[in-house]
Amino acid sequence: MTLVDRLASFPGVGRKSALRMALYIMRTPREFAQAMSEALLAVKDRIAFCSQCGTLAEQDPCPICTDQRRDHSLICVVEEPGDVIALERTGGWSGVYHVLGGAIAPLDGIGPDQIHCEQLNQRVRRGGVKEVVVATNPTSEGETTALYLARMLQDTGVRVTRIARGVPMGSDLELVDETTLQQALAGRGEMK
Amino acid sequence: MTLVDRLASFPGVGRKSALRMALYIMRTPREFAQAMSEALLAVKDRIAFCSQCGTLAEQDPCPICTDQRRDHSLICVVEEPGDVIALERTGGWSGVYHVLGGAIAPLDGIGPDQIHCEQLNQRVRRGGVKEVVVATNPTSEGETTALYLARMLQDTGVRVTRIARGVPMGSDLELVDETTLQQALAGRGEMK
Repeated sequence: MTLVDRLASFPGVGRKSALRMALYIMRTPREFAQAMSEALLAVKDRIAFCSQCGTLAEQDPCPICTDQRRDHSLICVVEEPGDVIALERTGGWSGVYHVLGGAIAPLDGIGPDQIHCEQLNQRVRRGGVKEVVVATNPTSEGETTALYLARMLQDTGVRVTRIARGVPMGSDLELVDETTLQQALAGRGEMK
Repeated sequence: MTLVDRLASFPGVGRKSALRMALYIMRTPREFAQAMSEALLAVKDRIAFCSQCGTLAEQDPCPICTDQRRDHSLICVVEEPGDVIALERTGGWSGVYHVLGGAIAPLDGIGPDQIHCEQLNQRVRRGGVKEVVVATNPTSEGETTALYLARMLQDTGVRVTRIARGVPMGSDLELVDETTLQQALAGRGEMK
């Protein structure tokens, strides 16, 4: 397998971009390629899944799980570590996270056992949790997963909420798809 | 002013497209241009604003306002007639509409008096209304307008709700903008 093949296997990188990247590396000094390959290995050596929340971090437990200024009674459930980064960027979440490592997708053979549902179950049942906010993607897999988790935690008495699905900020109603508009109408809330 | 200039004044039509459209008309028989110009005038002659809800229709009152199968105690407030079309496409609204004809935008000199706020006020105060769903765009102008309307109707006792702002259906949390994610977290709701 050539470098081009390897590079083309990155998500979002086609053969044309991969070729351009490979040619770029050929033109740079050997040190550049060296630094790049070291960085690639360092990621695999240093970054690991947090044993508490399942996100990727250089430490275990991750800096979020060990941060005592955060509210550990609020758990936000997401599909992937990238979602943690997206939510952290908003600065709007003061609780902790639980990364499932995917979503339930029966057609792809992914059931609750293939993702970290049971870890969440145990974590909640250990106590000290007030609310679980399910922030899986607003796709059919994400919605299925949300429903599964809500039922799984039903008897714990812990509040299980779902992030709002609706019209994205700054958008124009005329340009929003029908399912989203339907959700926005169905999920309407009181104005104070 | 030439035909190209006229065509280029359409929203979303640049000079290049306008030129292509003009060349197309030159190549078609005279009857085509005739039919087109008649259709243009017919729109102006036949289509008018509904005197009840303010949307554009061939009849006054519009077919929605005269439809007795609809729930006339539910009013959905939108900015433009195009929003009515978008919401009708969802098939998820059984009430009627009120088209403001814009949104409050102080920087553009548009206050409540420049759009149909007072008409809504009178319509609600005439009675028979249970809920007003504010479906103005999730932009700063739309949110300002929503707040204004909520305050305007506060003393009527009529329920004033706002469509849900949140993550659009089918999207990926990683790719959603921060303000929308913040809204989705803040607007989270119980899972049943």
